[in-house]
Amino acid sequence: MNRIGNQTIKFNNPPTILETASIVGPKESNGPLAKYFDKCLEDEFWGENSWEKAESKMIKEASNLVISKSNLPIDDINFCLAGDLLNQCISSSFGLREINIPFFGIFGACSTFAESLCLGSILVESNAANNVLCSVSSHFCSAEKQFRFPLELGNQRPQSAQWTVTGSGCAILSKTGQGPYITHITPGKIIDMGIKDSNNMGAAMAPAALDTLITHFKDTGRNPSYYDGIFTGDLGYVGKEILKELALSKGYNINSNYNDCGVLIFDKDSQDTHSGGSGCACAATVFSGYLFNQLKEKKYKKILLIATGALTNSTTAQQGESIPGIAHAVSIEI
Amino acid sequence: MNRIGNQTIKFNNPPTILETASIVGPKESNGPLAKYFDKCLEDEFWGENSWEKAESKMIKEASNLVISKSNLPIDDINFCLAGDLLNQCISSSFGLREINIPFFGIFGACSTFAESLCLGSILVESNAANNVLCSVSSHFCSAEKQFRFPLELGNQRPQSAQWTVTGSGCAILSKTGQGPYITHITPGKIIDMGIKDSNNMGAAMAPAALDTLITHFKDTGRNPSYYDGIFTGDLGYVGKEILKELALSKGYNINSNYNDCGVLIFDKDSQDTHSGGSGCACAATVFSGYLFNQLKEKKYKKILLIATGALTNSTTAQQGESIPGIAHAVSIEI
Repeated sequence: MNRIGNQTIKFNNPPTILETASIVGPKESNGPLAKYFDKCLEDEFWGENSWEKAESKMIKEASNLVISKSNLPIDDINFCLAGDLLNQCISSSFGLREINIPFFGIFGACSTFAESLCLGSILVESNAANNVLCSVSSHFCSAEKQFRFPLELGNQRPQSAQWTVTGSGCAILSKTGQGPYITHITPGKIIDMGIKDSNNMGAAMAPAALDTLITHFKDTGRNPSYYDGIFTGDLGYVGKEILKELALSKGYNINSNYNDCGVLIFDKDSQDTHSGGSGCACAATVFSGYLFNQLKEKKYKKILLIATGALTNSTTAQQGESIPGIAHAVSIEI
Repeated sequence: MNRIGNQTIKFNNPPTILETASIVGPKESNGPLAKYFDKCLEDEFWGENSWEKAESKMIKEASNLVISKSNLPIDDINFCLAGDLLNQCISSSFGLREINIPFFGIFGACSTFAESLCLGSILVESNAANNVLCSVSSHFCSAEKQFRFPLELGNQRPQSAQWTVTGSGCAILSKTGQGPYITHITPGKIIDMGIKDSNNMGAAMAPAALDTLITHFKDTGRNPSYYDGIFTGDLGYVGKEILKELALSKGYNINSNYNDCGVLIFDKDSQDTHSGGSGCACAATVFSGYLFNQLKEKKYKKILLIATGALTNSTTAQQGESIPGIAHAVSIEI
């Protein structure tokens, strides 16, 4: 691999995304992308007695499913990179404690899936691994309980609030395969523009997405029209508009080929999710389900996935802190 | 790099640990390793108005210090790998939000420092980076508040309990340099032997340390006597004895050259920490302070650092779950 520009890595033997798997909750199962997911659940608990255990089961079963779809023997998967939104990433560590693969826990909030693809690609191209499992999850109920209010309170949510996607998305990256390939990655810096409204994560994360997007274009010499599609992870309706405006003000017009996974996963009119989806599983399930399918079907040939994360928690919000954002970009081509 | 055995990676151009830095709290400043730390604080708050902000300041200032000691321009440090014990790793993300280096958040509980050395070494040898910053922190007060009880309660602690180290340890890994070198890494699997006592983390983590230790020996063909010293991260007095016994029962005698960072950092008789130190900063400050010094002084020529982590949180404890452990091994030679 080569470093190009300031922050981008170009792979000379681009890792293949060998297979993906996605499991989603009931609300996502009623959304416009339902047919692309491997498994649609009818119940948020999935037979468990807590939301945390249900989320652990989702990442466990989605990981098992992607391994099964890949036809790889488990011993050929050399590392697992996994993370989630729960305190101390317990969804991943409990869900994957029996998987018997060397384990690297990662945390990039809702950007975690892109972080796993970045580090996973490096592991694969560097010969550290032949195959790497990337797994993330999030769950509306466990996230609300932990980051905001008990669900039982029935709190009102402002229009800028987003809805954490319930589900798990997983991918296996491999040294060998016929693509789609990860050709470049642009890992992002932490960007904090002073936004303090934890019900407006889209606004808090948009500047990080902008920074990574523009850095990617500068490092690679590409412009927005190089890609059939540019997809942020979970800026939602509010953050999407901010990013489009900010990018245009910097001379990059992404109006025609840009969308956001949080906008795509729910129906704006009928599903009442306000600014759209969020959470680690937002970018992960939309990529593992919908986008991977579109690449395989050659409906998209070149996409840029920029998953965004808000590196905050409820304590920092109570202590009056602003919300640092981060965004990692992954260039994927067939 | 080459994969050897099942889980080990051997570096053909071993990354140098260019420089380290450590900042510790008042209790550590009164312990037997005080003279090896770069900065000893007299106050847990360090001028901040919360423990979380104090911890963020520690990781920020320790990171700035190691960069300054390395004499590298900030632009030559291509990635930061960082993590801590707080919910959503806020110590790292807030402490390092102004550092302006592409950022990968990682979480391996108290094993996070070894995880950062593992991933950092791969980034450096693979050409993904010329230099990588590895930073972790923990803080007794913020950890107690979050994982156990409010400090104001003055809860009694059983003899098997450990004392979270307050501080931050950082290292810069580099493609060029005169060592100490990271020659091999053995990243670990999650191991859960069903221990449920969150006041006995040493017992919960010892089986993970054993698994990684034995895997490292089998993969490399080495035996315990190859190393001048083998150091676990924070098994404490209780876990240290368990690991010695378990290793012996598997045919590996580590009695003469094995110690634990949690045993080394506090004085057993006078400091009343019961089973010894723990936390991300335990392995990180003992390595960055004491062990790095011993390597530079050639008092140790070959060491194996196995930082251990308990992948648990207070919710899982309340839900009756056991405590999964993990351990990552890093072989360091001059």
